[in-house]
Amino acid sequence: MSQYTMYQIIDKKKKSIPLTHEEIKWTIDQYMKNQIKDYQMSALLMAIFLNGMDSKETAGLTDAMLYSGKTLQFDDPTIIDKHSTGGIGDKASFILAPIAAACGVKVPMIAGRGLGFTGGTVDKIEAVKGFKTDLDLNQFQKLLTEKGMVLIGQTQEIAPADKRIYALRDVTATIDSIPLITASIMSKKLAEGANGIVMDIKVGSGAFMRTKTEAKKLAKSIISTAKRFDKKAVALLTNMDQPLGQAVGHSLELIECVEVLKQKGAKDITEISLNLAAHMVHLAGIETTFPKALKRAKMTLKDGSALAKFSELINNQGGNPSFINNYSLLPMAPCETPILANKTGYLKSFKNDQIGFMCTELGGGRKVKSDKIDFGVGFYFHKKLGDKIKKDEPIFTVYHHKNQTKTVEMIQEKMNQDICQISKSAPAKKMETIFDVVN
Amino acid sequence: MSQYTMYQIIDKKKKSIPLTHEEIKWTIDQYMKNQIKDYQMSALLMAIFLNGMDSKETAGLTDAMLYSGKTLQFDDPTIIDKHSTGGIGDKASFILAPIAAACGVKVPMIAGRGLGFTGGTVDKIEAVKGFKTDLDLNQFQKLLTEKGMVLIGQTQEIAPADKRIYALRDVTATIDSIPLITASIMSKKLAEGANGIVMDIKVGSGAFMRTKTEAKKLAKSIISTAKRFDKKAVALLTNMDQPLGQAVGHSLELIECVEVLKQKGAKDITEISLNLAAHMVHLAGIETTFPKALKRAKMTLKDGSALAKFSELINNQGGNPSFINNYSLLPMAPCETPILANKTGYLKSFKNDQIGFMCTELGGGRKVKSDKIDFGVGFYFHKKLGDKIKKDEPIFTVYHHKNQTKTVEMIQEKMNQDICQISKSAPAKKMETIFDVVN
Repeated sequence: MSQYTMYQIIDKKKKSIPLTHEEIKWTIDQYMKNQIKDYQMSALLMAIFLNGMDSKETAGLTDAMLYSGKTLQFDDPTIIDKHSTGGIGDKASFILAPIAAACGVKVPMIAGRGLGFTGGTVDKIEAVKGFKTDLDLNQFQKLLTEKGMVLIGQTQEIAPADKRIYALRDVTATIDSIPLITASIMSKKLAEGANGIVMDIKVGSGAFMRTKTEAKKLAKSIISTAKRFDKKAVALLTNMDQPLGQAVGHSLELIECVEVLKQKGAKDITEISLNLAAHMVHLAGIETTFPKALKRAKMTLKDGSALAKFSELINNQGGNPSFINNYSLLPMAPCETPILANKTGYLKSFKNDQIGFMCTELGGGRKVKSDKIDFGVGFYFHKKLGDKIKKDEPIFTVYHHKNQTKTVEMIQEKMNQDICQISKSAPAKKMETIFDVVN
Repeated sequence: MSQYTMYQIIDKKKKSIPLTHEEIKWTIDQYMKNQIKDYQMSALLMAIFLNGMDSKETAGLTDAMLYSGKTLQFDDPTIIDKHSTGGIGDKASFILAPIAAACGVKVPMIAGRGLGFTGGTVDKIEAVKGFKTDLDLNQFQKLLTEKGMVLIGQTQEIAPADKRIYALRDVTATIDSIPLITASIMSKKLAEGANGIVMDIKVGSGAFMRTKTEAKKLAKSIISTAKRFDKKAVALLTNMDQPLGQAVGHSLELIECVEVLKQKGAKDITEISLNLAAHMVHLAGIETTFPKALKRAKMTLKDGSALAKFSELINNQGGNPSFINNYSLLPMAPCETPILANKTGYLKSFKNDQIGFMCTELGGGRKVKSDKIDFGVGFYFHKKLGDKIKKDEPIFTVYHHKNQTKTVEMIQEKMNQDICQISKSAPAKKMETIFDVVN
C-alpha cells in the first residue's frame, strides 16, 4: 500500500503546509496512472492557486511533470531556448531564432497553438504552405543538431502531465498561478534539453500578466526554478499594452518578420527580437558580455545572415521560402478597410486583448480548439501608442473577406467606443518596449 | 444560452468576490443536471473552503440545496429539531427526544449513519430488532403529526444536492468549512419543516471542531442562517474531550439511554440531554423561559413520562421495547476485558478520536460505507476525566468477541502509550460539560 493518500496531500496544501518532493512526485505519477481523479486534482490545483507553492515545491512539480514523458539531453552549451508568455502580434520567435542561429546558437523550438486572444507560433508558420510542424522527437533532435534550428508543435511525448493538468486548469480557473505557470513552462523547456532559457514575459492589457509586479514574480519564479536544475536563465519584461510591431494575423505577421530581417521593420519588434536573441547568444557563451552579443546580433541583420537563416528554417521543414521575396505567395484576404480615428489627438491606450478577440472574430484565431484558422485575415497598424493622429486618419487597416463587412463595422464601432483612447495632449513619457531584465 | 459559466463563478470565488444568490442557485441546479463536472465543483468547493462565504452567500447556498429536493412545511410551532455535529458516545438524541416529546414538543429526526470515528444515530437504534428507519417522507410526516416523534435515516428525497456535494467534499478535504457545514446541516433541517432548531456543537479531541473559537464561528453561522429563514435557533457548545456518558458502542449506548431516562445515568449525558431538550421546549413556546423549560424537562425524568415516550418511539416504528426492562434482549458481545491504568494518578486527557477509531477497529463502526456494524461490541468507561485512578484499576471495559484478543491487546497498548494521559496532580478546574450557549 502507498504511504500517501490524495486526501492527505490536498489537506496539507489547503493548510499551507509545503508538500515534499516525494508527495508531489507521487501525485503526478498516480494522476497519470488514473489513480487520482480529476475532481481531486482540481481541488489540489485550487489549493495551490490560493496558497501558493514555495520555490522548492515549484521545482518539485516541474521535476515530476518533466519526467512524466520523454526527455532529451545534449552536451552542447550552445542550445538555448526562448519562451514567450504570449501576446498580440508576437512574432518575435521567427526573427530572434534566425538571428541567434546566425550567431551560432542552436535553437530548439517546441511551440504552441493559439487559443482565446493570442495567436500561436505554430499556427503562424503554417501560413507557409508545406511547412511541417508535426515532427517527432527523433526528427526534432536531428534537425537541431544538424541544422541548428527547429520549430515543432507540442507533442504528447514531452511532459504529458503538463498537457493533462493544463486542460484541467483551463476549465477550473486555475491558469494564472505563478507556480503552476512556472512548472508548466519549465517542465517542457527542461525536457527539450536546452541548456539555457531566455524568457519574454509580456506585461499589459494584451497579456496574461497585467502588472509588472506579477510579471516580475513569474520571472523570479522561473529563474529560481531554472537555477535549481543548473540551467542558465534570463527574463525580459516587455510591453504588451499594444500589439507588438504593426501586424496582427498570420500571413501579415510573417511578412512583418521578413521586413524586420530586411531591416525595414517597426522599432519595437526589432528591438525586442534583437535583445532576446542577444541574451541567447550571451547565455550560449558565444560572447562574453551582453553588449558584445547585442552588437553581434545587430550585425546579422546588416549582413543578411539572419534572413538567410530564416530561409533555411523554412526550407529545412518542407516550406517554400520564395515568399520572402514575393509576399503574394502567402494567403491574403482580398479586402482592405481602414479603421479611422473619430477625433484628432494622440493615441493614448488600447484594450489590447480586445484587439486579439477582434482578430479571432474575423477567423484569425481560435475560440475553441477545433476551429480552423484563416491565415489571410488580420490588422496592419499605421499608428502606435503615443503617435499623433488626425480625425478620419486610419489607425489600422483590416484585411478581410467580402462577406465580413458586418464584422468590420463592429470593429470600427468598438474602436470608437472604448477599445482605443485618443487624448488631446501628447503622452508625458515615451512608450517603453522593454521594462526590465531579470536574472 | 445561460448568463453564467462555471468558469466565471469559480474565478469570482477564487478572487474572493461574493457570489450572488442567482449564481449559487444556477451552480447547484446545473450540477444536479450534470451540466457542471465534479472537477469544476471541487475547484469551487476548495475556493469556498479557503476564501469563505459571507452570511448572505451561506444562506443562498442553503436555499439552493434545500430546494434541490422535496420540502415539508408545517404550521405547527411546536415542531423543533435538534442536530449534533457528532462525537464519541453521543446518544443524546434518544434521551432528549422523549423528554421534549413528553413536554409537548414534536420532534422530527432525520439522522445519519456513522463513518470514521463517530457512530451514527440511525445505526444505534437499529440494535433494536425490528426498528424501521427507512421510512419515506409520507410516513415520516404521518408519524410526526400523529405521534409527535419520528426517527428516520437520510433520504434522497431531502436535499439531494447536499448528498452529492458532501460525497465530493469527503474525498477532496473540504469537509471542515464553516459555510459548507452550515449549508449542509441547514438545508436538510429546513427541508424537514422544523420551526426551530437546537444545535449541539461538539468541541474537543473527539469532534470535527477542535477549538471553541471554531465551534463558536459555526454556531454563529448556523444561527444567522436560521434567522434569514425566519427560524428560531440556539446552539450549545459542548465538551467532546472524552466520550459522552460512559458507554461507546451501539447496544451499550442504548442501555445507557434507558439508564439516564431511569435517572441512573452519568452526570454529563444527563445534563446535556436535559439542557438540549429544555431549549427545544423553550423554542417551541411551551414554556416562556429557559429555566421553566429546564424544570419541566427534569420533571419528565422523575415522573417516568420521558421513559414512556421512549418506549412509544420504539413501538411506533416496529421495534420491541421489552429491552427497556431486559437489556439481555439487545445484541451483546460475550467477552469483557478491563483496560487497566498503568500508573496511579488523575485521568488528565484522552485522545478521544482514537477511542472512536478503536471502537471501529472492534467492528463497532464503519471504515467504509459498506461495512456492517457489530452492535454488541464497545467500551464502558468506569472513570471520567478528572477522576482519581490507581495503577491496575480499570479505566474501561471492552466488550468483544473471543477472536478479538489481539485487538484488545492493541487497545491496552495504545492506551498505555498515548491515548490516555494520567497526571500526578489533580486537575486545576472541574471538567465542564456545556461551554457556552449561543443564540
